Amino acid sequence: MFPRRTTKPVKIGGVTVGGGAPIVVQSMTKTDTRDVPATVRQIRELEECGCELVRLAVPDQEAVEALKDIKSQARVPLIADIHFDYRLALGALESGVAGLRLNPGNIGDADKVAAVARAAKERGVPIRIGVNAGSLPKHVAAGMKEGELAPRMVDVALEQVRLLESLDFDLIKISLKAFDVPSTIQAYRLMAEKVSYPLHLGITESGPFRSGVVRSSVGLGILLYQGIGDTIRVSLTAPPSEEVIAGYEILKSLNLREKGPVLVSCPSCGRVEVELMGLVQAVEQKLAGMTRPVKVAVMGCVVNGPGEARDADVGLACGKGRGVIFRKGEPVRTVEEKDFLPALMAEIEAV
Amino acid sequence: MFPRRTTKPVKIGGVTVGGGAPIVVQSMTKTDTRDVPATVRQIRELEECGCELVRLAVPDQEAVEALKDIKSQARVPLIADIHFDYRLALGALESGVAGLRLNPGNIGDADKVAAVARAAKERGVPIRIGVNAGSLPKHVAAGMKEGELAPRMVDVALEQVRLLESLDFDLIKISLKAFDVPSTIQAYRLMAEKVSYPLHLGITESGPFRSGVVRSSVGLGILLYQGIGDTIRVSLTAPPSEEVIAGYEILKSLNLREKGPVLVSCPSCGRVEVELMGLVQAVEQKLAGMTRPVKVAVMGCVVNGPGEARDADVGLACGKGRGVIFRKGEPVRTVEEKDFLPALMAEIEAV
Repeated sequence: MFPRRTTKPVKIGGVTVGGGAPIVVQSMTKTDTRDVPATVRQIRELEECGCELVRLAVPDQEAVEALKDIKSQARVPLIADIHFDYRLALGALESGVAGLRLNPGNIGDADKVAAVARAAKERGVPIRIGVNAGSLPKHVAAGMKEGELAPRMVDVALEQVRLLESLDFDLIKISLKAFDVPSTIQAYRLMAEKVSYPLHLGITESGPFRSGVVRSSVGLGILLYQGIGDTIRVSLTAPPSEEVIAGYEILKSLNLREKGPVLVSCPSCGRVEVELMGLVQAVEQKLAGMTRPVKVAVMGCVVNGPGEARDADVGLACGKGRGVIFRKGEPVRTVEEKDFLPALMAEIEAV
Repeated sequence: MFPRRTTKPVKIGGVTVGGGAPIVVQSMTKTDTRDVPATVRQIRELEECGCELVRLAVPDQEAVEALKDIKSQARVPLIADIHFDYRLALGALESGVAGLRLNPGNIGDADKVAAVARAAKERGVPIRIGVNAGSLPKHVAAGMKEGELAPRMVDVALEQVRLLESLDFDLIKISLKAFDVPSTIQAYRLMAEKVSYPLHLGITESGPFRSGVVRSSVGLGILLYQGIGDTIRVSLTAPPSEEVIAGYEILKSLNLREKGPVLVSCPSCGRVEVELMGLVQAVEQKLAGMTRPVKVAVMGCVVNGPGEARDADVGLACGKGRGVIFRKGEPVRTVEEKDFLPALMAEIEAV
């Protein structure tokens, strides 16, 4: 793996993004922001599954008003997502949000941008500049040829960056999201060469769970492997907690974060002589609420079983109707199939 | 993206692996191979979702006998997965399998390996050498230090390769699977520098669906992006059709294969004024059986909506209770929310 890119850290409330801090997992509420109870309920769900920053759309003044109430009930730092109207940004800042996501070029003339930058700076609130393939300015999107998407996205983002810098504002994060994975990777790589601001990674509109989680894992995985990325948001047309769970799984797969247990399990095949799939599902459910980073292996046969089971904190290598439980590499007991689940869980609790 | 690595092609039945052929998606049956009806049923399911090669565990002579029957009912080329006993390999070849997966060092002495290599060569049947982190020889696994896993896996695999080459056998594919993604990537990269045989990619024992699909997408995505990989198998403790669907999604996300529709959909947020998540799920279900590579976008609001909708073959950009349908970049009609699904599907059928 490549070393992580050195970036200039920013603080969103108590959460540091960039500068070598752990890569931050964030998500966005999907409720109507004006519906305070529903939004707070969703923020609570996000907090419970480890979401470290929560973004909310703030499309109108009523949503700005709701922000104050929401803020008073949220433990996680909140980021306001603003388009078109600088007054919404000023209002969100007054409500006490810890971050803004807006493109200065999209909220009005120079005076208005200056007012927002000044207010954000006074409060130490960073601004994320986010350029999405789907919302490039018309004159930029027009007549774009194959391979031009990434450099054009970078140009548009840099223009926004320079605008903020000219106002002596540098609490900046940048995102460059497209649906196309190679274009997204190219855009982030280009940007990483040009600035030292932290980068917020995402594959935009990546779709429903099954295809979206693959697309996001591939795109974010490739960038993270290259040392690029300070915070991630997995966009899925699915409940936001799924975005957070997937985000952590991406980071865990590259050993960039620890978060609860890791479950190693074999796919099962014609060699397996126990009912493996149901067992693995049951173990997965039991592990879901656990916060310790214990590594558990559930393996169906003698080919890879003992090896993987030995490598885990707690492992089960099955044979015909029975299995051997390993703890930290040592076989500790043989159990009958009917006792697999309780025996495994007892060992996990004890580890 | 990096150019694809040049590899020496092999043929598994009618399917070419390597040599610039499209990256092949494969899976493995999870039934007891001796249960012919259940195994054939699962092979049928795999064929229906586009699986191009199917591997079966052949743990005993009874499974070898079953292979003949299974072979006569399968359309997709079959690969026999053999351990420990060279007679199973010879029997599988007689049953007409199109590929073998075995490690010569694990099926007996030199005479036995020579007999298998000779029989495979006569039939033009390739052998995959597969080294898994969990089944390294004990003397290799013993006392392994941090960072040594990948080079040791490569050494073990190369020893097997040299053994086959010494028998004048070169219809070889190689896999090097570990649960740890960075180690797996390192192993394949090292091997890619040393030989020109095609590589079969996989992250072994990657776990149940939710974590396994992420881990596999990250690992395989990174390697494929680097131009490495000629065939892939996503290992999930889940029905094998899920492995195939995930495999294609990985390839589609890097534009390496086309396979049916692509669904772009926004994650939804507080800006959306229609019921988006249910709509996207309904569209996803309707698209599931479709084979044409049509790109469909379902977008919740005016921020990225029109841009993404324009970029798709058929797109819907929603506003408050209504939306605009785009076809090949042009807005074609405005529809009420209650008509979203039929209107979208009608446009998709017509495209």
